[in-house]
Amino acid sequence: MSKIGFARRLFTEGLGTALLLATVVGSGIMGANLSGGNVSLALLGNTLSTGAILVVLITIFGPVSGAHFNPVVSIVFALRQELTFQEMIAYIIVQFFGAVLGVYLAHGMFDVEIIQTSTHIRTGYGQWLSEAVATFGLLLTIFGCLAHAPDRIPFAVGLYITAAYWFTASTSFANPAVTFARSFTDTFSGIAPVNIAAFIAAQLLGAMMAYGVSLWLWPNSNSNQ
Amino acid sequence: MSKIGFARRLFTEGLGTALLLATVVGSGIMGANLSGGNVSLALLGNTLSTGAILVVLITIFGPVSGAHFNPVVSIVFALRQELTFQEMIAYIIVQFFGAVLGVYLAHGMFDVEIIQTSTHIRTGYGQWLSEAVATFGLLLTIFGCLAHAPDRIPFAVGLYITAAYWFTASTSFANPAVTFARSFTDTFSGIAPVNIAAFIAAQLLGAMMAYGVSLWLWPNSNSNQ
Amino acid sequence: MSKIGFARRLFTEGLGTALLLATVVGSGIMGANLSGGNVSLALLGNTLSTGAILVVLITIFGPVSGAHFNPVVSIVFALRQELTFQEMIAYIIVQFFGAVLGVYLAHGMFDVEIIQTSTHIRTGYGQWLSEAVATFGLLLTIFGCLAHAPDRIPFAVGLYITAAYWFTASTSFANPAVTFARSFTDTFSGIAPVNIAAFIAAQLLGAMMAYGVSLWLWPNSNSNQ
Amino acid sequence: MSKIGFARRLFTEGLGTALLLATVVGSGIMGANLSGGNVSLALLGNTLSTGAILVVLITIFGPVSGAHFNPVVSIVFALRQELTFQEMIAYIIVQFFGAVLGVYLAHGMFDVEIIQTSTHIRTGYGQWLSEAVATFGLLLTIFGCLAHAPDRIPFAVGLYITAAYWFTASTSFANPAVTFARSFTDTFSGIAPVNIAAFIAAQLLGAMMAYGVSLWLWPNSNSNQ
Repeated sequence: MSKIGFARRLFTEGLGTALLLATVVGSGIMGANLSGGNVSLALLGNTLSTGAILVVLITIFGPVSGAHFNPVVSIVFALRQELTFQEMIAYIIVQFFGAVLGVYLAHGMFDVEIIQTSTHIRTGYGQWLSEAVATFGLLLTIFGCLAHAPDRIPFAVGLYITAAYWFTASTSFANPAVTFARSFTDTFSGIAPVNIAAFIAAQLLGAMMAYGVSLWLWPNSNSNQ
Repeated sequence: MSKIGFARRLFTEGLGTALLLATVVGSGIMGANLSGGNVSLALLGNTLSTGAILVVLITIFGPVSGAHFNPVVSIVFALRQELTFQEMIAYIIVQFFGAVLGVYLAHGMFDVEIIQTSTHIRTGYGQWLSEAVATFGLLLTIFGCLAHAPDRIPFAVGLYITAAYWFTASTSFANPAVTFARSFTDTFSGIAPVNIAAFIAAQLLGAMMAYGVSLWLWPNSNSNQ
Repeated sequence: MSKIGFARRLFTEGLGTALLLATVVGSGIMGANLSGGNVSLALLGNTLSTGAILVVLITIFGPVSGAHFNPVVSIVFALRQELTFQEMIAYIIVQFFGAVLGVYLAHGMFDVEIIQTSTHIRTGYGQWLSEAVATFGLLLTIFGCLAHAPDRIPFAVGLYITAAYWFTASTSFANPAVTFARSFTDTFSGIAPVNIAAFIAAQLLGAMMAYGVSLWLWPNSNSNQ
Repeated sequence: MSKIGFARRLFTEGLGTALLLATVVGSGIMGANLSGGNVSLALLGNTLSTGAILVVLITIFGPVSGAHFNPVVSIVFALRQELTFQEMIAYIIVQFFGAVLGVYLAHGMFDVEIIQTSTHIRTGYGQWLSEAVATFGLLLTIFGCLAHAPDRIPFAVGLYITAAYWFTASTSFANPAVTFARSFTDTFSGIAPVNIAAFIAAQLLGAMMAYGVSLWLWPNSNSNQ
């Protein structure tokens, strides 16, 4: 990866995270608009769209930046010494920026107010447990594939999120940048700002558990990105 | 596989089975909560989530433990002498434990009572025939892939269960540990304890038929896990 | 393929066709039972289940028998001299038998009358054009993959039928054995016996067109089954 | 590709574009007919069918013509000097012809008037931004795969369009030939003729942006079609 300029990697992380959020928020608006009040149909459109775009974004951007799009992924890669501390910080910053821009892009496409604040309360032990489990599973998916089948990461992550939208009570944010940015939309996929901190804490907890388990299960895995 | 400690294999079987059950039960609750009484929508969410997580779990855990997550799979691998009798027993025990813990995890995420007992009656010749067919097909899928395309097992099993949720009257449990554990939830995916024994008997029958057919169709297949 | 006994090939064709029909008819019953009268939801379950099982059945049975499960496929392989006339006749016979048994199996699983006759009228120019187009596309899919990507046949056929359920007015039977057998069920997926002949004629026409086009587009393709 | 006659390439582009439009329009009619007025269900059938057929068509026709089926794709390949100017013009002409014939084919299959004109107004800044974003993402998907994983183009494009149907306000036409041809149907997927020009302008803008970004992100990528 040394020959690929760092600017290009950062641009790719930001662009990928923006497109991911545009998809999460945009398909949430589309689903809610069309489903006539049946929330399962809105969530179905949201799920299909998000799972599919993850496969695409990781396939095309993985070879450039690693396609993290997620601060906890970058943190754990730094712990594994595959990213320096400075690189990690830069990755996280562009992920947060890109995520918010992606929300704005979705708002632009659906002709709603660009600047919004979510009023969607998402709180409670069940939600927090869901976020810890969702993030734990996401990172196990990534490390398990890295150990034995790195070329399957795009499909595995897309399918994992497809599943996690439905098996967790929170619909699986599993990503601090996504959580933060989704507070900028008062549509289907939003989360009230006051609920962000606990979600991110749960995500960090789940990520650390996955890091520990993965060191034991797949001791020799190195990323081949 | 000799260098991978047996404890790691057992932990992986238990963790994988737990995550499978958390998905089956959790997505069943989510589907039922959101679908406004339309059972086909609840089953659709349940199907998507279960099919997708199977691909992921078998991809990441297959190289560690074989990713059975299912006592009849372990029994047939023991018959094929790819698992010793002692290993088989240990696998089955952690599968049952993991499965029940997975149900509890789903209850925790959805903030419902942790300890429940299903009242969902699932009985009759049609249901039992369904379970025999479902398990027969599942094991043929595994053995057919082992013979010619072992790297396709994750996708084939995920797609098989996606199909079997809909073409069997029982929605395809096809797994004694799953059947047992689903008696511990009084939600969408539950089964009353009194109906467990007949389901498991039908599953064993289907598995034995698949074992016989697979020996004839794919005489030289060995697992390359 | 010479070392694989012909009996095994015939058994595989019959079993695969039976499981295909059990899926088409069974998932049709499940969809209709659960969808509360919304036909699009019934068709969605029917589509997912059929598309998924095709991937599985072709993956596991392809290396044994070629996984035709369809008389027009066997006819065109005979025209391409990859099947003798006698083999073709035997294949077609077991496909028809297996298909009907698969319908009975679905009836058994769903606890409905085993012996039924469809009263579902499917007729008219639009339906016939649909069947010709559906079969044309199915055979192009098979020959196109044989020419350049034979290992993708299972996925391509499963996805093709997933699409064709929705883009043809007939929901894409595209298979004379399937058409015949579906007259034996008076459920969601049935077709009245009086409508069979025209459907099969249209399917043969579409298949012949695909045979001609494929000879031109992919002159050097041979099956590597 | 020099040994493959140019006529065959043009025929393939025309046939593929026709089958793509038959799918888009046909599955739109099917979805609208069956969904009982729930637009999200109609869009779901439309999405599944279109995403699935794209995987199939690109898999089987890619090795013959490149499987563009889209004038902006051909234009960008000409800019990359992988298509001459004359070839590009010929490709675009057959794409437009094929697209309209595909709409007529869908009308024939569903027994509606062959010649129609859409009255479906699709206009406004949100729609135009959606088309620019949709086309930008489609071309990034193609170029990103060409650079690192050309054999994944069929799956990536199918999944991209699956996502884009839901995350853009316009349901992602992303293709001037598709846009033009969809003005010939007054069904679910139509677009009024007066709205075509702005859609195509937005698509060209998105394509040019993707061309620029892809030159920077993947400087050494060449098509290996």
